[in-house]
Amino acid sequence: MSKSEQTHEAILDEATRLASRIGLEALSIGELARALGMSKSGLFAHFGAKEVLQREVLEHVAGVFIAEVIRPALRAPRGEPRLRLVFENWLRWSTARHEGGCPFVQASVEYDDRPGPLRDYLAGEQTRWLDFLAEATELAIAAGHFRAAVDPQQFAFELNGLMLSYHHAARLLRDPGAEIRVRTAFENLLTRSRR
Amino acid sequence: MSKSEQTHEAILDEATRLASRIGLEALSIGELARALGMSKSGLFAHFGAKEVLQREVLEHVAGVFIAEVIRPALRAPRGEPRLRLVFENWLRWSTARHEGGCPFVQASVEYDDRPGPLRDYLAGEQTRWLDFLAEATELAIAAGHFRAAVDPQQFAFELNGLMLSYHHAARLLRDPGAEIRVRTAFENLLTRSRR
Repeated sequence: MSKSEQTHEAILDEATRLASRIGLEALSIGELARALGMSKSGLFAHFGAKEVLQREVLEHVAGVFIAEVIRPALRAPRGEPRLRLVFENWLRWSTARHEGGCPFVQASVEYDDRPGPLRDYLAGEQTRWLDFLAEATELAIAAGHFRAAVDPQQFAFELNGLMLSYHHAARLLRDPGAEIRVRTAFENLLTRSRR
Repeated sequence: MSKSEQTHEAILDEATRLASRIGLEALSIGELARALGMSKSGLFAHFGAKEVLQREVLEHVAGVFIAEVIRPALRAPRGEPRLRLVFENWLRWSTARHEGGCPFVQASVEYDDRPGPLRDYLAGEQTRWLDFLAEATELAIAAGHFRAAVDPQQFAFELNGLMLSYHHAARLLRDPGAEIRVRTAFENLLTRSRR
């Protein structure tokens, strides 16, 4: 990685940190320049416009998500072991990994009413993630861990709900029992799906 | 209701509509004045400061939620019939009722990292709502509809997750299957809880 690429990555890391706290719409090149101790003109050389910065932040977050949540889970055997690892990685991602909580949860609420390329990109990525979860569920059926009657898309929908409820309980409510709740909910979902 | 109180309510209705789309932080007295065709000074006479307006919007939303979701459900017999009516009312509230989706979902993500009275108020109201759901679950156990081993707080946590997943699928993903998914998930939760 060149020096300029390293700087670019460091800017995106800080922008992600800021966006997970204040949101992607409130993120401005001026505010980011202050947080980084850089000049606004220096940042403009990297991104040119706020929309470019916002899109790059979302792409950056998607890349980190693949590296930290998806890729390590693919090392586990197909079926229930892989789904368990997906769950563990996602749980860490959802709160501990980000000072301001999951950037996708933040952005989903911000952009659901803002038509445009950012919303389209975000909805596309979230759909791909739910499809990934459904495929991992299909593999659990194929491996004989889950009943054939389990609906993979339904499983993905319910798993996503557990994680959103956890995010809400842990972040807004600061509920110390949130982690136990989501672990119990996940076990309930697995129990119902098993052969 | 006096003329002044009527105007106050009409302002809060419009402010809620705006906030459900753009968020409570982006809501300004200037923007609201434009949307209402009123003068900024006229609005200041009602609210004085942005923080007062934001707090009143949240209280207004809480009042409408009680009137449209909670109170009608209390007319149904205790136990599963009441939980079903809570679910139906909440489902309508979560999307159809608000142009920009549930104002509490929006505000929960906005305020989870903003310490202060608005965050405290919001977390308190959301905790009361989860407690209400847990109490309705306890009544379903007492009525003999649910097994005694059902954990009411766990039921509330999972029900909240279903609704958050529905909100995400219906609002961000515009998934036409979202309503069928959440209804199936709710039936799964009831089936698991029944005696």
